[in-house]
Amino acid sequence: MNQQYPSALLEKAVGEFAKLPGIGKKTAMRLVLHLLRQDSSVVEAFGNAIVTLKREVKYCKVCHNISDTDTCQLCSNPLRDASTVCVVENIRDVMAVEATQQFKGLYHVLGGVISPMDGVGPSDLQIESLVKRVEEGSVKEVILALSSTMEGDTTNFYIFRKLAKANVKLSVIARGISIGDELEYTDEVTLGRSIVNRTTFTGTV
Amino acid sequence: MNQQYPSALLEKAVGEFAKLPGIGKKTAMRLVLHLLRQDSSVVEAFGNAIVTLKREVKYCKVCHNISDTDTCQLCSNPLRDASTVCVVENIRDVMAVEATQQFKGLYHVLGGVISPMDGVGPSDLQIESLVKRVEEGSVKEVILALSSTMEGDTTNFYIFRKLAKANVKLSVIARGISIGDELEYTDEVTLGRSIVNRTTFTGTV
Repeated sequence: MNQQYPSALLEKAVGEFAKLPGIGKKTAMRLVLHLLRQDSSVVEAFGNAIVTLKREVKYCKVCHNISDTDTCQLCSNPLRDASTVCVVENIRDVMAVEATQQFKGLYHVLGGVISPMDGVGPSDLQIESLVKRVEEGSVKEVILALSSTMEGDTTNFYIFRKLAKANVKLSVIARGISIGDELEYTDEVTLGRSIVNRTTFTGTV
Repeated sequence: MNQQYPSALLEKAVGEFAKLPGIGKKTAMRLVLHLLRQDSSVVEAFGNAIVTLKREVKYCKVCHNISDTDTCQLCSNPLRDASTVCVVENIRDVMAVEATQQFKGLYHVLGGVISPMDGVGPSDLQIESLVKRVEEGSVKEVILALSSTMEGDTTNFYIFRKLAKANVKLSVIARGISIGDELEYTDEVTLGRSIVNRTTFTGTV
């Protein structure tokens, strides 16, 4: 369908929305017309929020998480255990681990995983700064919490090699069947790992 | 899941995106992080496009369609047939009819349909201006192209009553089974209308 926009401004706004991932021309049009029906103040607030974020956002100089300050809330919190560092791909993973309320240490955000197909090499990630952080001596354990993909595994192995000489315990998050999953529908690799990495039963799972 | 945002600016931007229809917190986060990875110029262009649209958009004083000028491209085009006016709900419907390339007349954008449930009465729509436009005398036919819903039918009937005394032909777009549809799966009301409003077969459908 060859769309003929009645207004160049409308076409431009729809075009900008349609650049977002997962948003096509039709959805973009719906979103723009929705905003157009709102008060000017609402539209200004929307436009300013994203521009202000991009302009003023900082990245924590310790863990590289998004932050409003030079050192993020987590890294500057004296109640967190600074001797344990959880290595994650991105900000969303920090939020996901935080939501579990099972981890009281600090994070290190790599900014991705090694992926030659996408042109992402070790130097594009915050790996050097992780090594430096470990070499400073206060970190006792590094937990690798990357995706269970080939790229994640490659990155895990790269970090393992880089930290081989450092006096630090290196662990990886457990892989196994999800809580609530049935054995029958679990893929054999995951099930196999679940069996190999079985833990002592203590009455509760 | 209780989300703990690492940055108030991030939370605000995600909140603004999540206000859009059909966009939840997770999608909002994905969109914001996508924009954050882009150049500042891209983000500024995005933010400005929607704010500029809201600030500078005009509505055609004849047909009330969105326009960059006081009178829209369609209404100011001398090649269009000004004696036929197609009444539609909104801008998207203008674009949908235009995309068919089957209509060479002008439009009249109501801005919605009469819907007491949503608090939309006749005075909230561009019905008075349609009546005035018809009374000026150059319109020969008004085509009602509203949604085939109770609200659309109510609005059709309201306009029919309002234009009863005017010397104008009033027609409504054909309802029937869609091109490519099978009879078996067509609802009986639509199929019934298709039979009642059958047209003479001339070799092509």
